[in-house]
Amino acid sequence: MSLSPDLFIAGTRRAGRGDPVHAVAPATGERIGPAFGGATAEDVADACAAAAAAFRPYRAAGLERRAAFLEAIAEEIEALGDTLIERAVLETALPPARILGERGRTVGQLRLFARVVRQGDWQEVRIDPALPDRQPAPRPDIRMGRIGLGPVAVFGASNFPLAFSVAGGDTASALAAGCPVVVKAHPGHPGTSALVAEAVDRAVARCAMPAGVFSMVAGANHAVGAALVTDERICAVGFTGSRAGGLALMALAAARPRPIPVYAEMSSINPVLVFPHALASRAEAVANAYIASLTLGGGQFCTNPGLLLLPEGPGAETFLRAVESALAAQPAATLLSPAIHAAHQAGQAALAATPGVDCIGTGAEARGPCEARPTAFVVDAARFDAIPHLSDEIFGPTGLVVRCPDAAAMAGIMERIEGQLTIALHIDAADEEAAATLLPVLEEKAGRLLVNGFGTGVEVCDAMVHGGPFPATSDGRSTSVGSYAIERFLRPVCYQDMPPALLPEMLRDRTPQQA
Amino acid sequence: MSLSPDLFIAGTRRAGRGDPVHAVAPATGERIGPAFGGATAEDVADACAAAAAAFRPYRAAGLERRAAFLEAIAEEIEALGDTLIERAVLETALPPARILGERGRTVGQLRLFARVVRQGDWQEVRIDPALPDRQPAPRPDIRMGRIGLGPVAVFGASNFPLAFSVAGGDTASALAAGCPVVVKAHPGHPGTSALVAEAVDRAVARCAMPAGVFSMVAGANHAVGAALVTDERICAVGFTGSRAGGLALMALAAARPRPIPVYAEMSSINPVLVFPHALASRAEAVANAYIASLTLGGGQFCTNPGLLLLPEGPGAETFLRAVESALAAQPAATLLSPAIHAAHQAGQAALAATPGVDCIGTGAEARGPCEARPTAFVVDAARFDAIPHLSDEIFGPTGLVVRCPDAAAMAGIMERIEGQLTIALHIDAADEEAAATLLPVLEEKAGRLLVNGFGTGVEVCDAMVHGGPFPATSDGRSTSVGSYAIERFLRPVCYQDMPPALLPEMLRDRTPQQA
Repeated sequence: MSLSPDLFIAGTRRAGRGDPVHAVAPATGERIGPAFGGATAEDVADACAAAAAAFRPYRAAGLERRAAFLEAIAEEIEALGDTLIERAVLETALPPARILGERGRTVGQLRLFARVVRQGDWQEVRIDPALPDRQPAPRPDIRMGRIGLGPVAVFGASNFPLAFSVAGGDTASALAAGCPVVVKAHPGHPGTSALVAEAVDRAVARCAMPAGVFSMVAGANHAVGAALVTDERICAVGFTGSRAGGLALMALAAARPRPIPVYAEMSSINPVLVFPHALASRAEAVANAYIASLTLGGGQFCTNPGLLLLPEGPGAETFLRAVESALAAQPAATLLSPAIHAAHQAGQAALAATPGVDCIGTGAEARGPCEARPTAFVVDAARFDAIPHLSDEIFGPTGLVVRCPDAAAMAGIMERIEGQLTIALHIDAADEEAAATLLPVLEEKAGRLLVNGFGTGVEVCDAMVHGGPFPATSDGRSTSVGSYAIERFLRPVCYQDMPPALLPEMLRDRTPQQA
Repeated sequence: MSLSPDLFIAGTRRAGRGDPVHAVAPATGERIGPAFGGATAEDVADACAAAAAAFRPYRAAGLERRAAFLEAIAEEIEALGDTLIERAVLETALPPARILGERGRTVGQLRLFARVVRQGDWQEVRIDPALPDRQPAPRPDIRMGRIGLGPVAVFGASNFPLAFSVAGGDTASALAAGCPVVVKAHPGHPGTSALVAEAVDRAVARCAMPAGVFSMVAGANHAVGAALVTDERICAVGFTGSRAGGLALMALAAARPRPIPVYAEMSSINPVLVFPHALASRAEAVANAYIASLTLGGGQFCTNPGLLLLPEGPGAETFLRAVESALAAQPAATLLSPAIHAAHQAGQAALAATPGVDCIGTGAEARGPCEARPTAFVVDAARFDAIPHLSDEIFGPTGLVVRCPDAAAMAGIMERIEGQLTIALHIDAADEEAAATLLPVLEEKAGRLLVNGFGTGVEVCDAMVHGGPFPATSDGRSTSVGSYAIERFLRPVCYQDMPPALLPEMLRDRTPQQA
């Protein structure tokens, strides 16, 4: 399997003449080849023009061919075999087992959306038949269905080189909705991106899809992404990344002559609330599970438990001692890139230097160039409330425990906290009443509420919500994981008194056998 | 029935100390009493604080009480009787029959949403049951449901003093979704607004709803609306009005520390496409129906047919002559307000002064202070393409006919046109093939496509889409009319491994009898 250093523009390869992207192996800190050509403004415009040209033929290809295309992408990704796994491991330092699992999730996602496309519920078909005899005026025949918004720009994420990247959730849901996709490859894993882009290209050819249905551009600077988001043919944006990056894309999209929706998943500290009875009965087990979640994948999940609220009382000291022990057994984590590593180290150092913030414990010392030392800190609730930056996300294996003198302190923090992806409750049966009191505020603060678990580990299913109020995402009305993600890229169209021959297939009358 | 000149803040009346609002009777151009007090920033903040405080208890009241509340609002509006009709006629110069019809639509809308609330489909309940034996890891129990976004700001529209105003579609759908509402009354009909606000207040009291679930503020300047949209407790905005107004609210909402969705319905010229066979067979009938639609309600519908594309060939001259005759029989129209009248006169004059734009015909001369003369103009396709301002909306009874030399010219115009609320096709059976060729572009340009009708007259039903791509609206993913409008104000929340006692009612397991 060759590794193309070129741009993927509507089924053709083109040498990028913009600033090149160099992959870095986080484990060694060294550059690895090849150099991937960066896109110029012209390359971006060509990709967008091809996407716009592909929109109608792609829609017209019909649902069965669209579903088969999604399945073909999954097959072609699997056909990349170990080449893909090895390259992704090299570029991200994530372990092979994790990348294998992520590949399974990625192809599973594509196949889930193939099923969703075939099932067709997302078209939201509604039919109000004519009422010719209605008084004072007859009612016409009115039918609604939903179609895709148009070409979608997808930004690959650093921390899921497959499942939130070139052929990840946003691409799968946009293609399922009937929208061509132009991907901006994440510079952290350009080779992985190129391999997956090749797989998608092969699926496009195999399924005889219009070439512009997929393009991928790369670039080492922000200009490429900005050109993509501001191209007049782009109709929506999917992004997973930093808060600064998401806010920048939101501002660009809102300032366009024709503003477009941005679905940016940005930052979350995913509060974990431990309740008194659960703490008294199983402090050690909760602590061990907490540290396992905090350090999973180097702590580089959007759902990483950055904040834990601990009630004073029986079990609190046991919990803190167990956190210390569990951390002591943790190896240092090689983070995804030098930039992410630098940001993590700065965040961790700032936390350590904050008066009133104490270290609970640490894992093994960092040695390699991108290594981070898993660390948990503790602070009291009054100080946490007084220092706004303590609720900023630190992306990586660093956690903060807040000691809450009573339930009111815990509730107060949750009333004031920003929007989150997840909130986890650790409760025993005797805590349920107290938890019930808090639920209304928690529902307003997060897209996903969990009991006796942690947010790391996001099921790809129909009921999943991986989203949440700002600033967890730019748009709390949607999810980036699970079948409900198709909602992002749809709009309703209504047809009034349309002759049967002109109605879209989805809105035609069915014989009883078809219904 | 007394007419309160006060602000309605969470069930209490408060004299407004900001710039007052004076109603004007468009028929005479004279001020009518009383002076309605304008809101200060503090009044707006109080209304928003009360709305935020009401959000949880209003949600907790449950669906049956919420539905009954919507029905109570409808009853209280009906109980206003002729007082409401007379005041609305006085403030808008719309005829009593129209206002009566609009009241029917308004209460019908509230009752429709009561049914929608009870039915509960909008909660989008999804349940992925636990799979404890799944390999390599068990699946937790995952359930999704949707809840309201939070307090919603609703801006009353000038042209529907009941159906798109204080208790109009946005208010009904927001309340149905579980969101408290703060209305900014439209200054064009302050008395009508006060009467309806009184009715809503009575329904709030009768149904023992939390007082903050409804407030109404007024004001003669933009500061009141800006304070409302930028209040940190407001979670979404509904607006129907001008493009300038909508864009201003979008910019304010995007610049907030926590950006929020804005649903602004702004401007549309609602292209009407006449096809050759239809023109040859029934030019006169189409022309008469066109002029009836163009002048309906003084041409002051969002769906007014501002643009008509006419093919050259048999019937074209007949059509233009019939337009001239139909117009000649039209009386002058009293527009809604001096400001709307002034804007219409300026737009009509600019059109008349554009080289290459000819007058087809006019209605009766304008005499009264807010009267406008119904007028249709004609221009050729090449000139239409060359002069961008010819596709600007002129709100009122002014239409532009574009002569298209062939189908390609018509298609070209539709490819380049901005987003629209509606597009109407006039076709005979022999035109269907040509219409089918155009449909893919039309679907991208409008929220509603009609055959052999006009967009004026919007059914309130399940399949209606009164929306469309920018700049027809700020957000083409939704509708402001019909039951689908509830989608605007909802967000999904996911519950993982939640004990039954903590699950929201909508997500609990049902016995077979309940299902």
